[in-house]
Amino acid sequence: MHELRVRYGECDPQGIVFNANYLLYFDVAFTELWREAVGPWTEMTERGIDAVVAETALRFRAPARFDDVIGIALRIERLGRSSIATAFDVVRGDDVLVEGTMRHVVLSRETWRPVEMPGWVRAGLEPYAAG
Amino acid sequence: MHELRVRYGECDPQGIVFNANYLLYFDVAFTELWREAVGPWTEMTERGIDAVVAETALRFRAPARFDDVIGIALRIERLGRSSIATAFDVVRGDDVLVEGTMRHVVLSRETWRPVEMPGWVRAGLEPYAAG
Amino acid sequence: MHELRVRYGECDPQGIVFNANYLLYFDVAFTELWREAVGPWTEMTERGIDAVVAETALRFRAPARFDDVIGIALRIERLGRSSIATAFDVVRGDDVLVEGTMRHVVLSRETWRPVEMPGWVRAGLEPYAAG
Amino acid sequence: MHELRVRYGECDPQGIVFNANYLLYFDVAFTELWREAVGPWTEMTERGIDAVVAETALRFRAPARFDDVIGIALRIERLGRSSIATAFDVVRGDDVLVEGTMRHVVLSRETWRPVEMPGWVRAGLEPYAAG
Repeated sequence: MHELRVRYGECDPQGIVFNANYLLYFDVAFTELWREAVGPWTEMTERGIDAVVAETALRFRAPARFDDVIGIALRIERLGRSSIATAFDVVRGDDVLVEGTMRHVVLSRETWRPVEMPGWVRAGLEPYAAG
Repeated sequence: MHELRVRYGECDPQGIVFNANYLLYFDVAFTELWREAVGPWTEMTERGIDAVVAETALRFRAPARFDDVIGIALRIERLGRSSIATAFDVVRGDDVLVEGTMRHVVLSRETWRPVEMPGWVRAGLEPYAAG
Repeated sequence: MHELRVRYGECDPQGIVFNANYLLYFDVAFTELWREAVGPWTEMTERGIDAVVAETALRFRAPARFDDVIGIALRIERLGRSSIATAFDVVRGDDVLVEGTMRHVVLSRETWRPVEMPGWVRAGLEPYAAG
Repeated sequence: MHELRVRYGECDPQGIVFNANYLLYFDVAFTELWREAVGPWTEMTERGIDAVVAETALRFRAPARFDDVIGIALRIERLGRSSIATAFDVVRGDDVLVEGTMRHVVLSRETWRPVEMPGWVRAGLEPYAAG
């Protein structure tokens, strides 16, 4: 669970978080999971490996507002040969505000094409993957 | 089809459009479809009606880069009682870069709860809805 | 001093924080100063008072990069009848990356025109103002 | 003069363009001036030259709102050895909404240090520079 506080500039004239910004929040939470599981994102890119989002889906159930403290809970649903499927819940207290999924693909920074996930990435992520 | 040019600040350290910004592009294209079909968005909100995104999904097939001119083609897939399902294709020349869907829900600005789509909204959108 | 970690989507193809995002950071730091000095921003707006940025200036000395932890130090330079002048330093360790200033003006949310700063705002801010 | 339409996601809960986004607008207008005067920005970067913002200042006189069509007028005030000083006016009809300045510095992409502006950059910009 990664916590953050909603910034004013992330909210729109309806007074709520503009929908695009939840993808920004997912990215922040995923980066923090990565730090804990594998290490800083930039250590990976320095080793010639990167990851990009191939697919995402979001369901907006209730709005977050300026200055709300929200949590982003995430769990890895599936580790494939070169892909990582993650589920996200944005919560405020007991309320689930947004549910989402993302599928990342691991790439070579030389060819920008998918590659098999290196062992040190897989080993880091496996403890976070769903049973 | 709505055309726009990718801005520098919309691109990330990989040199490509950051994923969240496609939702910004979808919103721009949807606003322009609305203008053509129903009228300016703000005319609707002044009449006490608004619309919010309830669901969205995106599939990223190829990246757009800084200074690219891209098109956002959209078609209304289904008009429900209070909801609008729209499909989006982000293209550059003949290449489809991103495919997406959005489901909007029509709301009362008084109660912020879903309401039946007013006749003048439905009448405007129907010619744009898939056969 | 408010600390935050640079997000990937805040960085541009040069791999550094896009200049506009420092104004976002200033806003976050100012909101936190306000919370400490006066209370949550939204408590003020609920009492019919708001504040907007009238002027700002920034000098970029060195770039911040993705995943950097940076600090935003700020001090109120001058409290006027309806205006607040604030100086900002964005730092990483001992390095000053960006220096900036902002002048906020206190407004009535009814007329959206400047009003004399309420006593409870001034009393809160005064201890933070430069001697 | 570069024209653009204010996007919903660029506006904040006050219903007006969030201050940081004017720097995004300045960047768009500067890129278009560059295209006209020198050529596409990316042609410059492929030749090993880049430019970054060293200083900027903004004065906010009146707000722009969602769906407004605004113009960004700009003129080069001074061409130095490696720097470019530009003035910006954001206008809506006859109203000046925001006045700003930016100072860009021309860099080598190899060293990321200032270099003398190449002749082909200077020659392109000179006709746009104030008497």
